[in-house]
Amino acid sequence: MILKMYDYFNIDIDYAKGIYIYSKEGEKYIDTFSGIGVLSFGHSNENLINAMKNKMQRYMHLSNFFLDEDVEWVANKLIEFTDKNGAVFFTNSGTESTEAALKAIKKISTKEKNKIIYFKKGFHGRTLGALSINGFEKLKSPFRPLLPYCKEFEFNDVDGFNDYMKYHGDEIIAVFVEAIQGSGGVMELTKEFSEILNKYHNEKNFILVCDEVQAGLGRTGKFFSYEHFNLKPDIITVGKSLGGGLPLGATIFLNDTTNILKPGDHGSTFAPNPVALAGARYMLDNLPNMLDDVFEKGNYLKNKLESMKTYKIADIRGKGLMIGIELDEPYPDLRESAFKRGLLLNIISNNSVIRLLPALNISYDEIDEIIKILEELL
Amino acid sequence: MILKMYDYFNIDIDYAKGIYIYSKEGEKYIDTFSGIGVLSFGHSNENLINAMKNKMQRYMHLSNFFLDEDVEWVANKLIEFTDKNGAVFFTNSGTESTEAALKAIKKISTKEKNKIIYFKKGFHGRTLGALSINGFEKLKSPFRPLLPYCKEFEFNDVDGFNDYMKYHGDEIIAVFVEAIQGSGGVMELTKEFSEILNKYHNEKNFILVCDEVQAGLGRTGKFFSYEHFNLKPDIITVGKSLGGGLPLGATIFLNDTTNILKPGDHGSTFAPNPVALAGARYMLDNLPNMLDDVFEKGNYLKNKLESMKTYKIADIRGKGLMIGIELDEPYPDLRESAFKRGLLLNIISNNSVIRLLPALNISYDEIDEIIKILEELL
Repeated sequence: MILKMYDYFNIDIDYAKGIYIYSKEGEKYIDTFSGIGVLSFGHSNENLINAMKNKMQRYMHLSNFFLDEDVEWVANKLIEFTDKNGAVFFTNSGTESTEAALKAIKKISTKEKNKIIYFKKGFHGRTLGALSINGFEKLKSPFRPLLPYCKEFEFNDVDGFNDYMKYHGDEIIAVFVEAIQGSGGVMELTKEFSEILNKYHNEKNFILVCDEVQAGLGRTGKFFSYEHFNLKPDIITVGKSLGGGLPLGATIFLNDTTNILKPGDHGSTFAPNPVALAGARYMLDNLPNMLDDVFEKGNYLKNKLESMKTYKIADIRGKGLMIGIELDEPYPDLRESAFKRGLLLNIISNNSVIRLLPALNISYDEIDEIIKILEELL
Repeated sequence: MILKMYDYFNIDIDYAKGIYIYSKEGEKYIDTFSGIGVLSFGHSNENLINAMKNKMQRYMHLSNFFLDEDVEWVANKLIEFTDKNGAVFFTNSGTESTEAALKAIKKISTKEKNKIIYFKKGFHGRTLGALSINGFEKLKSPFRPLLPYCKEFEFNDVDGFNDYMKYHGDEIIAVFVEAIQGSGGVMELTKEFSEILNKYHNEKNFILVCDEVQAGLGRTGKFFSYEHFNLKPDIITVGKSLGGGLPLGATIFLNDTTNILKPGDHGSTFAPNPVALAGARYMLDNLPNMLDDVFEKGNYLKNKLESMKTYKIADIRGKGLMIGIELDEPYPDLRESAFKRGLLLNIISNNSVIRLLPALNISYDEIDEIIKILEELL
C-alpha cells in the first residue's frame, strides 16, 4: 500500500486531454490546476508528447557522465530570460532546486555572514534543507532541529524587515522569496516591500533567491514572476512545468553565483533526464509567444470572477493564470460539491482560497465553462 | 551554459540500445555501468518503452491529488519482497528517498534518543538532509553546519561500534547502512559486522535504514542486497532503476515505521510520475525471474576477472552485477584509454576502483566482450 499522505480525488482515470480528465466510467472533469501548475500546455499535448517519445525511442536516461543534446539549449534559454550571464544546475524537483541554491549559499557563508531569510508562508520544498526555510510552521515543526541560521520574517512587513536590516543586515547571506507566494494563498509582493528588498539587496550584498517554481515559466504572463516586481535575483529556482510533465527542476545561478559550486560539489544520477529535457526544449521554444496571451486570459478570468455576484468571494489575487480566489470563510465541502459538478478545484489555505493554475493554453470558452460552474457553486 | 559539475564522456549520442551507445559519428561504445545502475533492462528496451509510451499517450503527470492506476501495484510489489507489512512513499530520486526516511526518524526523535548513525563512505544523497549522513567528508565539509545529531562510524569496525553501543546505544534513533557500499568502492558488510548490527538493532531498538538505492532491485542477484547479510531493516530506500530510466524513488516504511508520517507531513508535486510508474510496473513484473541469472552472470564475470593474468587487479568485490575491481594503484588515464577502445568505464575511489553496473540482462557474449577489452587494458 502507499503511505496515506494525500487527499485524492476519487477518479479512476482513463485519459486526459487539454484541460479535461476522463474517467474509465466515462465521466469528464475540468482540471483547473493542471497537476499543480505542471501541465502548462495542458494534458496530452500532441507535439510535446511526440518530442518526448522521440527522445525516449533513442534513449531514456544517460546519467551525469553524458551530455544530452538538448541540455545546453535548455540551460541557455532559461538564462536568456534573465538578461544576465549564468549557469544552470539541473535537478529532479523544485525542492531539489532549493537544495542546490542552499548548498551554494552555505558554501560561501561565514561566521559573520550566515543568516538565511525566508518569509512566512513562503514555500520552497519539503526536503530537510528546503524545509529549514519553509514558511509553514506546521510543515516543519515535527522535524526540528533543522538547519541553523534560518530566520523567518512576515511577508510584506516593511517595518519589521527594515528594523532588522538596519542592525543585522550585514549578517544576511541570502534571502529566499516567492514574488507571488503560491501555497501561501497566491499572495503578491507589495510594491513597497519589493522596493525595500531591492534597496537592501544592493546595500547589504546578500544573495537574492527568487523561487519561481510555481509562478515562473510563464505562469503569470511574464517568463519569471519577479519581473512584475523588478527584483534582481542572483539565483532563480524553477521546477513544475519545466520538464513538460516529467520530473525536472533547475537552479539558475547568475553573475558571481555561477562561480560558487565547483565540480564535485553537487550531483544527481537522474537530472537532467533526457526525455524531460526534450519536453523542456519544446516548452521553452513555444512559451515565449504565449506570454501576452497568458496575461490577457488571466485578466479576462479575473474580470469574470470580479463580476460574479456573490458575497462568498472576499478577494481575487494573482497575475496571469495564477489566480487565488479568497473566500469569505473556509468551505470544507466546496471541493466535493465542485467535484460532483465535474470541476476539479485546488483549495488551499485551510479551504479558504481556490487556487487556479489552469493550462496556459486554455481557451476563452474553457474559461467561461469554469466560470459558469463557479457561479453555480459560489 | 550548464554549471560545470561533471566530467563528461565526449560522445555526441545518436541512440543507445542494450549495452551499447552509438554516436552520431557512427562510433559504438559498450556501457558497463548503465547510467550508474539505472538501466537494469539496458538502453531502449522495447517492452519497457512501450509500457511507458502507452501511459504517456493517456497522461503524463497528475500530481498528488490523483491516484495513478499503477501506484498500488508498484507499492505492493516493493513491499512483497520485504516479507513484512509496509507502506511506500514515492519520491523523485534516491536523495529524496533518504530525506523521507530522515523526516520519519526526526519526527520520533527525542532529546534522549536522537543520534543518527551512518558509515564512512556510505552514500545516501546530496541534498542537505541526506548530506548530513553522507560518509564522504569531502562532499559535505563545504556545506557545514548540517543537521545535528548525525554521527559517523567506520564501516565494518566491530570494536568501535561495540564500544559506542555499550555506552551510548540507547541514544541511537537510527542507523543508515548500505549493505554493499556503492560509491564507497563496492565494499560489502562483513559477516561479523552484520551480526553486530542485528544484535544492537534488537537490543537498542533503533530504526535500521537499508539504503538500497544502488544495490537494490535485483542488482546483486537478490531483490534487496541486505538479504545477503540477513539484515532486518525497518525502512528501505530505493531509486536508480525503479522508474525504468525516469526519475523515481521510494521510501519503504515497514512494520511500526508506517505509522510515523501522517497526511500532510510530506509531499511531492511530481512523485510518483505516472510514466515512471508504468516503467516501474514493467520492471518489477519482470525482475523476479531474472534474479538467479543476475547472480550467475555476476559470478561468471568475477571468475573471468579473477583469471585475468595481471598485477594491476588488487581485489574483486561485490555480488551479482555490482562489481568493484580494485586496482593496485590509481590509474588516472584508464578511463580515457578504455574510451578510445570503445569501453565506457566508471572508475571511482580516486581512479582506483572500476565499478561495473551493467544492464542486468547483459548476455554472456557481451560479458566476454567487456573482459576482452579489460584484458587489453589491464
